[in-house]
Amino acid sequence: MNPRPGNQLFDAYFTAPAMREVFSDRGRVQGMLDFEAALARAEAAVGVIPQVAVAPIVAACQAERYDFAALAEAIGIAGNSAIPLVKALGKVIASGVPEAERYVHLGATSQDAMDTGLVLQLRAALSLIESDLQRLADSLARQAEAHADTPLAGRTWLQHATPVTLGMKIAGWLGALTRHRQRLEELKPRLLTLQFGGASGTLAALGEQALPVAEALAVQLDLQLPEQPWHTQRDRLVEFASVLALVAGSLGKMGRDISLLMQTEAAEVFEPAAPGKGGSSTMPHKRNPVGAAVLIGAATRVPGLLSTLFAAMPQEHERSLGLWHAEWETLPEICCLVSGALRQAQIIADGLQVDAARMRDNLDLTQGLVLAEAVSIVLAQRLGRDTAHHLLETCCKRAVAEQRHLRAVLGDDPQVSGELSADELDRLLDPAHYLGQARVWVERALAEHHRFNA
Amino acid sequence: MNPRPGNQLFDAYFTAPAMREVFSDRGRVQGMLDFEAALARAEAAVGVIPQVAVAPIVAACQAERYDFAALAEAIGIAGNSAIPLVKALGKVIASGVPEAERYVHLGATSQDAMDTGLVLQLRAALSLIESDLQRLADSLARQAEAHADTPLAGRTWLQHATPVTLGMKIAGWLGALTRHRQRLEELKPRLLTLQFGGASGTLAALGEQALPVAEALAVQLDLQLPEQPWHTQRDRLVEFASVLALVAGSLGKMGRDISLLMQTEAAEVFEPAAPGKGGSSTMPHKRNPVGAAVLIGAATRVPGLLSTLFAAMPQEHERSLGLWHAEWETLPEICCLVSGALRQAQIIADGLQVDAARMRDNLDLTQGLVLAEAVSIVLAQRLGRDTAHHLLETCCKRAVAEQRHLRAVLGDDPQVSGELSADELDRLLDPAHYLGQARVWVERALAEHHRFNA
Amino acid sequence: MNPRPGNQLFDAYFTAPAMREVFSDRGRVQGMLDFEAALARAEAAVGVIPQVAVAPIVAACQAERYDFAALAEAIGIAGNSAIPLVKALGKVIASGVPEAERYVHLGATSQDAMDTGLVLQLRAALSLIESDLQRLADSLARQAEAHADTPLAGRTWLQHATPVTLGMKIAGWLGALTRHRQRLEELKPRLLTLQFGGASGTLAALGEQALPVAEALAVQLDLQLPEQPWHTQRDRLVEFASVLALVAGSLGKMGRDISLLMQTEAAEVFEPAAPGKGGSSTMPHKRNPVGAAVLIGAATRVPGLLSTLFAAMPQEHERSLGLWHAEWETLPEICCLVSGALRQAQIIADGLQVDAARMRDNLDLTQGLVLAEAVSIVLAQRLGRDTAHHLLETCCKRAVAEQRHLRAVLGDDPQVSGELSADELDRLLDPAHYLGQARVWVERALAEHHRFNA
Amino acid sequence: MNPRPGNQLFDAYFTAPAMREVFSDRGRVQGMLDFEAALARAEAAVGVIPQVAVAPIVAACQAERYDFAALAEAIGIAGNSAIPLVKALGKVIASGVPEAERYVHLGATSQDAMDTGLVLQLRAALSLIESDLQRLADSLARQAEAHADTPLAGRTWLQHATPVTLGMKIAGWLGALTRHRQRLEELKPRLLTLQFGGASGTLAALGEQALPVAEALAVQLDLQLPEQPWHTQRDRLVEFASVLALVAGSLGKMGRDISLLMQTEAAEVFEPAAPGKGGSSTMPHKRNPVGAAVLIGAATRVPGLLSTLFAAMPQEHERSLGLWHAEWETLPEICCLVSGALRQAQIIADGLQVDAARMRDNLDLTQGLVLAEAVSIVLAQRLGRDTAHHLLETCCKRAVAEQRHLRAVLGDDPQVSGELSADELDRLLDPAHYLGQARVWVERALAEHHRFNA
Repeated sequence: MNPRPGNQLFDAYFTAPAMREVFSDRGRVQGMLDFEAALARAEAAVGVIPQVAVAPIVAACQAERYDFAALAEAIGIAGNSAIPLVKALGKVIASGVPEAERYVHLGATSQDAMDTGLVLQLRAALSLIESDLQRLADSLARQAEAHADTPLAGRTWLQHATPVTLGMKIAGWLGALTRHRQRLEELKPRLLTLQFGGASGTLAALGEQALPVAEALAVQLDLQLPEQPWHTQRDRLVEFASVLALVAGSLGKMGRDISLLMQTEAAEVFEPAAPGKGGSSTMPHKRNPVGAAVLIGAATRVPGLLSTLFAAMPQEHERSLGLWHAEWETLPEICCLVSGALRQAQIIADGLQVDAARMRDNLDLTQGLVLAEAVSIVLAQRLGRDTAHHLLETCCKRAVAEQRHLRAVLGDDPQVSGELSADELDRLLDPAHYLGQARVWVERALAEHHRFNA
Repeated sequence: MNPRPGNQLFDAYFTAPAMREVFSDRGRVQGMLDFEAALARAEAAVGVIPQVAVAPIVAACQAERYDFAALAEAIGIAGNSAIPLVKALGKVIASGVPEAERYVHLGATSQDAMDTGLVLQLRAALSLIESDLQRLADSLARQAEAHADTPLAGRTWLQHATPVTLGMKIAGWLGALTRHRQRLEELKPRLLTLQFGGASGTLAALGEQALPVAEALAVQLDLQLPEQPWHTQRDRLVEFASVLALVAGSLGKMGRDISLLMQTEAAEVFEPAAPGKGGSSTMPHKRNPVGAAVLIGAATRVPGLLSTLFAAMPQEHERSLGLWHAEWETLPEICCLVSGALRQAQIIADGLQVDAARMRDNLDLTQGLVLAEAVSIVLAQRLGRDTAHHLLETCCKRAVAEQRHLRAVLGDDPQVSGELSADELDRLLDPAHYLGQARVWVERALAEHHRFNA
Repeated sequence: MNPRPGNQLFDAYFTAPAMREVFSDRGRVQGMLDFEAALARAEAAVGVIPQVAVAPIVAACQAERYDFAALAEAIGIAGNSAIPLVKALGKVIASGVPEAERYVHLGATSQDAMDTGLVLQLRAALSLIESDLQRLADSLARQAEAHADTPLAGRTWLQHATPVTLGMKIAGWLGALTRHRQRLEELKPRLLTLQFGGASGTLAALGEQALPVAEALAVQLDLQLPEQPWHTQRDRLVEFASVLALVAGSLGKMGRDISLLMQTEAAEVFEPAAPGKGGSSTMPHKRNPVGAAVLIGAATRVPGLLSTLFAAMPQEHERSLGLWHAEWETLPEICCLVSGALRQAQIIADGLQVDAARMRDNLDLTQGLVLAEAVSIVLAQRLGRDTAHHLLETCCKRAVAEQRHLRAVLGDDPQVSGELSADELDRLLDPAHYLGQARVWVERALAEHHRFNA
Repeated sequence: MNPRPGNQLFDAYFTAPAMREVFSDRGRVQGMLDFEAALARAEAAVGVIPQVAVAPIVAACQAERYDFAALAEAIGIAGNSAIPLVKALGKVIASGVPEAERYVHLGATSQDAMDTGLVLQLRAALSLIESDLQRLADSLARQAEAHADTPLAGRTWLQHATPVTLGMKIAGWLGALTRHRQRLEELKPRLLTLQFGGASGTLAALGEQALPVAEALAVQLDLQLPEQPWHTQRDRLVEFASVLALVAGSLGKMGRDISLLMQTEAAEVFEPAAPGKGGSSTMPHKRNPVGAAVLIGAATRVPGLLSTLFAAMPQEHERSLGLWHAEWETLPEICCLVSGALRQAQIIADGLQVDAARMRDNLDLTQGLVLAEAVSIVLAQRLGRDTAHHLLETCCKRAVAEQRHLRAVLGDDPQVSGELSADELDRLLDPAHYLGQARVWVERALAEHHRFNA
C-alpha cells in the first residue's frame, strides 16, 4: 500500500493555491510552532523562562524540520496534533541546546497550541479572502458601470418580466460582496483572539505570572486577549465560517445567473473562453460553464459543512471530545472552497463576454408583452386606470392568441392609436425606455463599494 | 377530514409564546398589511395616489379582517401569499370605499409585500431576542459573580482535570451571549431594510416618482433603503439566521454542561425543580433536565434549518422559484426555536441549584491527582524542574497503583516531605488554592457584559 | 395575545391535506392512544390486567376527548407528550369506570407510547406515500410512453448536446420512483416495529409476563417485535426519513427540469394551467412554475431536516435528552413536505403540456451542430475515422464562423457531398434519426415499473 | 510555494488506510482506467473496435503511468477528471501502438468514465465496510454475551433509572449494525450499476451496437445494466451514502455511551489503554476517550456531508454543472470517515475494559431508589396496587429526605416488614434480580447476528 496516498486531484480546480498552502500539513504545523515560539518569547519577557532558552526554541519552530507522516501516525494515537508536535519539538531542541527543551510549551495545553495556531492560519486566510473580495468587487464595479445601460429581460420564476440592465444585475452581485466585506471587518477583532488557558483554562500552572504571560503572548502574536479562554466556546470560529458561507452563497447566485445566461437558448453572457476550457471537439458550439460550476459547487457544499460546525458547538465542559475533532478538517475545507470560488469568480468577472444584441433579441421573445405595463401606465394617465388596464389586458390576450407582436396589436387598436402615436408606441415598447431605477441602483452599489474601499 | 388540523402540540415547550405570535398566520398577514398601509401613505405623500385613498386602505390593513384558511387555500394556487392577500385586501377596501381600491399595492410586486412584511416581523423577533438575551445575560452575570469562588472539577474529554470554578464556567456562557449581542447590533442596519422593487426590481412602473416613493416608504416603516432591491440577494436574512444559530449553539453548550452536571453520578448543579417537572413518581430521585433538553434540542435542529437557508441562496435572476419558497417556513422556525431555548435558559439561569459540597466531594474522586500539577510546580522551584516532575510522576503512579490518596503518598515520601510541610501539602492539595485566573476570567466577562449593557 | 396562534398559512401549498391530518395534534394524540388501547387488550389477553378493564380504557382512547391546548401546556412542564396524555387518559377513564384507571399504561414508559404512536402515524404516512408514488409513477409511465418519440435537445452543463426524447427524460424520473418504491418495500419490516421496553428498556416491571405481553401487543398493532427496545437506536426512523429525502431529491430534479423547460427562452414543456395559477394580469405570457416551486422547495428543505435526524442519532444510554426531542417535529415535517411535493408532481404529470414543435425548433438553435457527431460516424465508415473527424471539425468551425447551418456547409463541401447525397445529409441532420437507445431506455423503465406494480 | 501541499495530517486518525487508498488520486484514476480498459474489451468483443487494439489500451490503463499533479492542473481547465485522463491515456497508447489510440473511449462521455470509475471504487469501499461491519459485529456479539449478566444503572435523561445489563447495551449497538448490514445487502444491486450513455445518454454514437456493447461492458465489470444511464439521477449514490451515515450515527451512539461511561464520575467502562494513548503525564488518572472522539466526530461530520449529497440531487437535464461537482469529494469523504470510525470502534470493542464492581457501586448511588419499582410490584400483589404504590412512594420520599438507603427505610417500616422478610427485601433490592428481559434481548440480537452471518 502506498504509505501516504494523496487525495488532491480536484485541488487545482476547487481551491486557490495560496489557501491550500495555508491549510496544508505545513501550514497547520507552522501555526502551532508559531504559537510555541511566541510563548517562549513571552515567557522570557515576563521572566518565567530564561532569555537564553528563547533562541533555540524559536530556531526549532520551523515546520520544515518535522516529518509530517510521522506526526500523522502519532496523532492517531495521541488524539490531537499538538501532543506529538510538542514532543517532536522537544527532541529537535534537545538535539541542539538540551537545556532549552524544558522551557517549551510551559503552562500551555495542547488545545492552546492547536487553536492559536488555527487562528494564525485563519488570519492568513482572512487576508487572502479580503484581498480576493476587493479585487473581485473592483472588477464587478467596472463591469456594472460598463453595462449600466445594457438592457436584458428581467426574469422572475425563470419567466421573462419587465426589462432590467446587466449593470443592475452585476451591481446586485457587487452589493452582496460589499456587505460581506463589512461583515469580515466587524468580526475580525472577535476572531483574531488568543487561545491560552492551560490544562482546564485557568492558567493555574503559571501562578501569578499567568496574566502577564497571556498579555505578552497576545502582543507577540498581535491577537486580542479574550475575556477568558474559549476552548469550548466556539462562536468566534463558527461566525467566521458563517460569513464565508455567505460569500459562497452569493458567489453561487452569481454562478447560477451566469450559467443560466450561458444556456444555448439564452446565450447572452459567457465565461471567458480559454483553450481546452469546457469545450468539446465534436460540439464546437458548447461553452460549458466550467467556472460557474465551481461557484455552484461551493455554494452546494459549504452549507452542509457549515451545519457541522454549528452542530459541533455544544462542546462539553472545559474540552470536548468528538465535537472539537469535527472542526479540524471542516473549517479549513470551507476556507478552501470559498477561495476556489473566489478565484473562478475573478476569472469570470474579468473576462465576462456579453452579447448585448442577443439580449435585445431575447427581450423580444414575448413579442412586446414584457412592456405592456409601460403602455398601460401612460394610457392610464389619459383614459383612467381601469380603462387603460382593461384595454391593455385585452390587447395582450389578443397578441398571445393571434401570435402577433403587441406593437402590431396596439397599433391596430383604434382606442390605443387614438391616444398614442406610432412614435410614442415605438418608444413605449423599447426596453431601453422602461428601465426605471436600474441606473440608480448601479450608482448606489458603486457608491457603497467606493465608500468601503476608501 | 378536519378542515385545518393544527400541529402545535410542542409549541408551548419549544417556542416562546411571544415569538410564536410574531410568526403566526396573523403575524405574517399583518406584516404584509403594514407594508401595504405604509405604501399607501408614502405614495400619497409623494402624490402618486390621492390622499383621500389612504384612510380606507389603512383601515383595511388589519389582519383580523381576513380569513386565514381561505388565504391558505388561495396561496396553494397563486404560489405566494401576497397575491391572494392583495386581492382580498382590494375586496375589503372596495366594500367600504370602492374608489380607493385601485390605489392599493401600486407599483409593488408580491415579493415586496412578503419580504418587507417579513422584515417587520424580524424586527419584532429581533427585539424579543435582544431583550431575552439581555435578561439572560443579567441573570448569568449574577450567577457568575455569586459562584466566582466555588471550585469544581475541570473536565476535559469528560475526564477530571485541574479545578475550575462554577463562576468561570457560567462566565463562559455569558461571554458568548455578549458577543451575540454585539453581532445583532452590528447586523441590525443591514437586516432592517426595505424591500421595494416592483416587477423586476427597477420600480419602472412608478416612473420618476419611484425613488421618492421608496424613500418615503422607508421612512414610513423606519427601515433602511437598500442599495437596490434584494429579491434574490438573501444574505441579510441568512446572516440574521446565522447569528440566531450561534445563539442556539451557545445555549446548547450551556444545556449540555448542565445536563452533564445533573447526572446522578455528578449531581453538582440542577435546573430548578417545579411541580410535575421532569420527575417520576416511582423514581423520586430523578431530576430530568427538562429545560436543558430544549436547549440541546434547539442546538441540534437549528444547524440543519440554517443549512437550508444557505443552500437556498443561489436564487435565479430577479426572482427565484423554489429556493425563495424554501425560506418561508424555515427562517421563522429558527426564530421560534431560539426563542424557546432562551426561555428555558432563563428559567434555568434564574433558578440554578448548586451543590457546592458535592462539587468538593467530586473534586476528590481522583484522590488528589488533579492537583499533582500544583505540587509539582512548587517542588520544581526547590528541586529543579526535572527532578520535581519525575518525583511527582512516581508518586502519582503509586497513588493509582495502591489506590491511595495522593496526599498520603506524598506525605509518606521522604523527598517530598523533606521539602513540604504537612500544612503546605494540605494547602497545595486544596482545590481552592489552585484556581489560577478563574476569578479574573469572571471579572473580565462581567466587565464586557456591563460595558455592553451601558 | 392569541391563546394558540396558528402557523398554517403555507400548509395548503406545501403539504398534502391527508398527510397533515396524520401529523396533526389529533394524529399524534390518537397514535399514543392507540398504543394505550392495544396495551390494555394485550395485557388482558395475557392476564396481567382484568378483561373488564379493557372496554373503559379503549373507550377513553379517542383523541377527540382531549384538550390539545391543555396538553400542549402540560408538555411544556413534563418534557414529553405521553406523561400528560396518560394523566388525562386516567382522568377520563376514572370519570367513567374508576376501577379501570389503575390498569392503564401498565409497565410502559412514556417513550413506548410516543414511539409506538409515531410508528403508527408513520405507517399511515407510508401508506399515503406508497399510493402517491404508484399513482405518480403510473402517470409518468403513460407520459413516457406518449412522448417516447418526441425529440428535444439533450442538455449537458445547460448547453445543447445531441438530441434525446422527452419520453426518455420522463422515464428517467420514473426510474427513480420505481427504485424508491423498492426501497420503501424493503425498509417496511424494519420500520413498522413495536416500541415497548418500560422504564429502562428491560420490561422488568412486567416480570415473567413481559415477553408474552410484548408479543401480544405487537400482534394487536400488527407491528414487528424488535430484537430489543430501540429507545436510543433510531436508525429505523432515520432510514425512513432518508428514503423520503431521496423521493424529495428526485422530485426536485423533475421540478428543476420542468422549470428550465418552461423558461421563456425554451418554452417546451409546461405545468398545466389553472385559473389564477402562477399568472399575472399584466404579463399574460407568464407561466410561473408554481408546482415546480414546491418540488424544488421540498428538495431544498428536506436535506437540512434530514441532517438533523442523523445528527440526533448518538442518543445517550437508555433515553436521550435533546436529541430525541429534536426528532419530534422534524420527521413529521419531512413527511409533510414530501407529501406536498408528490401532490404537485401528480398535478404536473397528469396535465403536462408539451410543445413538440418548439422542441424541434430549439433543436435547430445550434444550426445543426448537435448532429455533427451523426455525420462524422457515417463518414468514418467511408473515409476512415481520422479523416472523417477532421473533416467534420473543419465544417463545424466554418458553420460557427460563418453563422451558417451545418447542413449548408456540409452540402457545400465537395468531400462531404462526394460521399453523402443531399437526402442522406438531410436524414443525418434530422434529430429523429439520431436518438440512439432512447426508446429502449423508455421500454426498460416501463418494464421495471410494470414489474413492480405487478 | 510548495507545488502540491498535502493536507493529510489527520488521515491516520480519522480514516482507515485501506479506504484512503481506495479514495486516493491513484484510486480515482485507476477506477476510470478500469472503465476504459473494460470498454475496449467490450467493444472488441462486439466488433466495434479491432481485437488487436485491446492489449495496448489495457496495458496503458495503469494509474502508475500517469502524473497526478499534471492531471490535477488539467482538471482545473477541463472541468472534469476524465477529459484530461483520456487525453493522457491516448498519448500513452500512442507512444506504444499509435494505431490503437483511436479506439479508446469510443462512444463514451466523460461522466461515463467518472461515474463507472466511482462505482468501482464504491464496490471496493463497500467490501471494506462490509467486512469491517462483520468483524465489529462479531466482536460486539462476543462482548454482549460475555457481559449479558453484568448489571449497571439504566440511565434515562442522564439520570439513573432501573438497572440494565452491559450485555443488553452492547446488544443494542450490535442490533443496529445487523440492520445496517441488511441495508447494504439490499442496496448493493442498485448501487453496483454501470454508467454508460455517451454524450446525452442515448449511446447514439454506437448505433445498433450500443446495447450489445453496454451489455458486454456490464459483464466485463460485473455491474448491473441500469434501466437507462443515470447521469442526473443520483439516488443510487445518495442511498449508499445514507446507509453509511446510518452506520456513522450508530457508531456515534456507541462512542457517546462509552465516553459517558468513561467519565471520572462513572468509570465503568474504558477504551483499551495503549502507550501514549490519551494519557497525560501530569494527570495519570486520565483516560481520554481517544477512539470515542473519532466515533462522535464522524457522527457529527457525516450528517452535513450527507445533506450536501441530497441537496445536489436536483441535477439539470442530461448533465449537471455544480451539483455533480459537489459530489466528487463529498461521497469519498463520507466513506473515509465511516471507515475511520469503524476502525476505532473495532479497537474499542476488542479491548473493552469493564469495571463490573464499579457498576455495582454506582447502582447504589441512589441508595436503592432505582429498585423501588421492584418492591412496589411485589407488595402490590399482597396489599393491592394502590396501597403498595402509596407505601413505596412514602418510603422513597423518606429515604431521600433522611438521606438513608431505601433498604433501611423499608426495613424499618412495619407495614413493609410485615409483608417482606429481610431476605426478601435484600433480594428485591439486588439489581441482579430486576433485569427483566435483558438476557432475552441479548439472545435475540445474537440470533439476528448469527442469522445474518450464516
